[in-house]
Amino acid sequence: MKSILILGAGLSASSLIRYLLKNAASENWHLRIVDQDRDLVLKKIGDSPYATALSFNALVSEERMPEIEKADLVISMLPARFHVEVAKDCLKLKKHLITPSYVSSEMKSLHEEAKKEKLIFLNEIGVDPGIDHMSAMKIIHEVQASNGTISSFKSFCGGLIAPDSDNNPWGYKITWNPKNVVLAGQGGLSSFKRNKEFKYIPYHQLFRRIDKINIEGYGDFEGYPNRDSLSYQSVYGLNEIETIYRGTLRRPTYCEAWDVFVQLGMTDHVLPLTHSENLSPRTFLNAFLAYHPTKTVEEKFKDFLGSHRIHLFGHFEFLGFFDAKPMNGPAGATAAELLELIITEKWRLAPQDKDMLVMHHQFEYTKDQQKYRIESSMVSIGEDPVYTAMSNTVGLPVAIASKMILKGMINEYGVLLPVNKAIYQPILEELEALGIVFNDKHYEIQ
Amino acid sequence: MKSILILGAGLSASSLIRYLLKNAASENWHLRIVDQDRDLVLKKIGDSPYATALSFNALVSEERMPEIEKADLVISMLPARFHVEVAKDCLKLKKHLITPSYVSSEMKSLHEEAKKEKLIFLNEIGVDPGIDHMSAMKIIHEVQASNGTISSFKSFCGGLIAPDSDNNPWGYKITWNPKNVVLAGQGGLSSFKRNKEFKYIPYHQLFRRIDKINIEGYGDFEGYPNRDSLSYQSVYGLNEIETIYRGTLRRPTYCEAWDVFVQLGMTDHVLPLTHSENLSPRTFLNAFLAYHPTKTVEEKFKDFLGSHRIHLFGHFEFLGFFDAKPMNGPAGATAAELLELIITEKWRLAPQDKDMLVMHHQFEYTKDQQKYRIESSMVSIGEDPVYTAMSNTVGLPVAIASKMILKGMINEYGVLLPVNKAIYQPILEELEALGIVFNDKHYEIQ
Repeated sequence: MKSILILGAGLSASSLIRYLLKNAASENWHLRIVDQDRDLVLKKIGDSPYATALSFNALVSEERMPEIEKADLVISMLPARFHVEVAKDCLKLKKHLITPSYVSSEMKSLHEEAKKEKLIFLNEIGVDPGIDHMSAMKIIHEVQASNGTISSFKSFCGGLIAPDSDNNPWGYKITWNPKNVVLAGQGGLSSFKRNKEFKYIPYHQLFRRIDKINIEGYGDFEGYPNRDSLSYQSVYGLNEIETIYRGTLRRPTYCEAWDVFVQLGMTDHVLPLTHSENLSPRTFLNAFLAYHPTKTVEEKFKDFLGSHRIHLFGHFEFLGFFDAKPMNGPAGATAAELLELIITEKWRLAPQDKDMLVMHHQFEYTKDQQKYRIESSMVSIGEDPVYTAMSNTVGLPVAIASKMILKGMINEYGVLLPVNKAIYQPILEELEALGIVFNDKHYEIQ
Repeated sequence: MKSILILGAGLSASSLIRYLLKNAASENWHLRIVDQDRDLVLKKIGDSPYATALSFNALVSEERMPEIEKADLVISMLPARFHVEVAKDCLKLKKHLITPSYVSSEMKSLHEEAKKEKLIFLNEIGVDPGIDHMSAMKIIHEVQASNGTISSFKSFCGGLIAPDSDNNPWGYKITWNPKNVVLAGQGGLSSFKRNKEFKYIPYHQLFRRIDKINIEGYGDFEGYPNRDSLSYQSVYGLNEIETIYRGTLRRPTYCEAWDVFVQLGMTDHVLPLTHSENLSPRTFLNAFLAYHPTKTVEEKFKDFLGSHRIHLFGHFEFLGFFDAKPMNGPAGATAAELLELIITEKWRLAPQDKDMLVMHHQFEYTKDQQKYRIESSMVSIGEDPVYTAMSNTVGLPVAIASKMILKGMINEYGVLLPVNKAIYQPILEELEALGIVFNDKHYEIQ
């Protein structure tokens, strides 16, 4: 019997656990799942005889080491910053490890040691990063195998709300960490490459530089630039590419309206606001509008929007920004913290709401002097509030990769990403069988 | 004989040293001046028998302690972050201390101990902070003594170039730390109070929210908001004030043109630019302009400026932004670092250039139901490249305060600012005799 240790049973672990339990009998697996909240684990494993719920602090090495020792494979679903410490324990105890998160430079530095021990430390195998890598590499390898040269790669991903649950002017609800929604794009310039030129965009221009995208059957989307598009050049082996760009997807009007917060300064996460505990949404907004001796907040805000953005007024009414009732925010809160309070309440998922994960790649390549274009799109709709699109798209590739490791199907070692065919092909095929399907369109460019 | 120890003999110490030497004979003082660069000290003391040039690392406690022990007064002209460590040594050895810099919270925490020992740790006694505190407090106290209530205080300061040396389109040259010029306003929201409302401005709007100011005989200036205007409320005892605002002065068109860098993202100090060592001013600028298949950098930049800002084109031509010659900047440089390279070269002071320090306060107050306005302005022009306006306005108040301490004229103890009349009045009077004069205008508001 093979023992799988899962550290962390939060939101994104649901679909992972379900898949592993479903295959536990036939594969002869037993799951040991740790979370501070043992009830959460019990809810997810039901009465399955193939899993044991544990409760200890998985962030503490001494507490998790005895459990890692018993395992054949460790899956860390902890917050990303803790993966490296888990990896070090896995190195000591010679255990394979999977994490869905970005490889840190510290994690990368364990590569040689892990390789020497013939250990697999597989990372970036959820969604953005994960399915995006795999689906892109599949097309890149196919083009290269046919002697095509890729000149342009643009890729977009977004965690959104399903069309049937989309009933607010923003076309958006909180399906993931609301703090990340508020801080998106902050912390320095965004960079990408356009026709061989490196280009940089400051934060306050980010939500104005949008790409428009249509996905058949799902309508229109807009993409704003991610912070770092350049590092994907080396990950994907595309150092000579002329254009590389990654963006985040939202529904139309979202970026234009969010830009209003950016322009006003209401996403700032540095300065604690004076008397933040007394602010209402109305006085919070007013603190970012220029003073006027007689005009109301509504009038000053309309002046700020101007005629070209006046159609967005309802977006802010929907969020309750003209309400004078105090928010009861904490003292010393930053604008970003107050904004997070507001959107967490107003963009809350209703019990029947379903989320939606959208991914879209655009390639341009040349073959025999002819230019071609490929568009590849994937839309995944959540099943319910537990088995969300986010949980499925993060958890299922992790689960399939787990199966492959335990069955000895992976013969690379060290700190890995799923960019080689031997890894991504079986995973993409099984994802397709599970309903996570890419729809590719091929065009000749005239 | 009284011994004065000066730590650091950089730019702003010149006028300080000259004043103290001039008075050394009559006051029976001897100066001991330390700098890593002993030649710098020798140049500033000439053949005066009243000063000794020392060379050791004043940043190291063990090296400076024996010298502090010999002194009656220590003046720290070191970079601001080192003052606290000097203060701790002064506490141990029971010596008075003067620094021209902002009081850090760590410095503030030494107050009770210093007070108990009857030591004077006098800070913020140069210019901005320093002369601004003293000249503002003088007027605030006068208004309050006449039973007036101050409703509004706006204050501006700028280190600029003298009118005779002003020969570039920006009306600006580097008279101080160029890094601070590039980073000005960054790091979070700027805050102030307007008619009882707390207001916040994000960095990318800062150079658009300008006040226009005219100073008789010196023409027009523009002020952009400082990061923190609110903390002055408590320092000045004006917690109930309706409007409080502090700004930095520049000549007209500077803010509008600098805003172009801000809007493009060229002041970012976070992201290292790809191949920064190969960039020319031209390719550096181009990296921040949207891609166009055929337009030149000049054309794209003109498009970015638009017709309402096209009059600024010459500002950027002056800075050489259309030159294709590599800058030989360092690898891994941020945009802010490259911009600093450019302005340091193009805004360099010529040998005959003189700098100019401008300060301007605006008060509004009510007395017997009548509203009044006071405008108080000071302009100081540098003498030459050594005795600059910056050196005079920083060094002279420090020097006068030194005299007062050594003559026993200050009877407050602890960590002090020059906000009490007993300190600021003699200093302002002597500054006036030395040519640093405030010109006040009083108006009735109709």
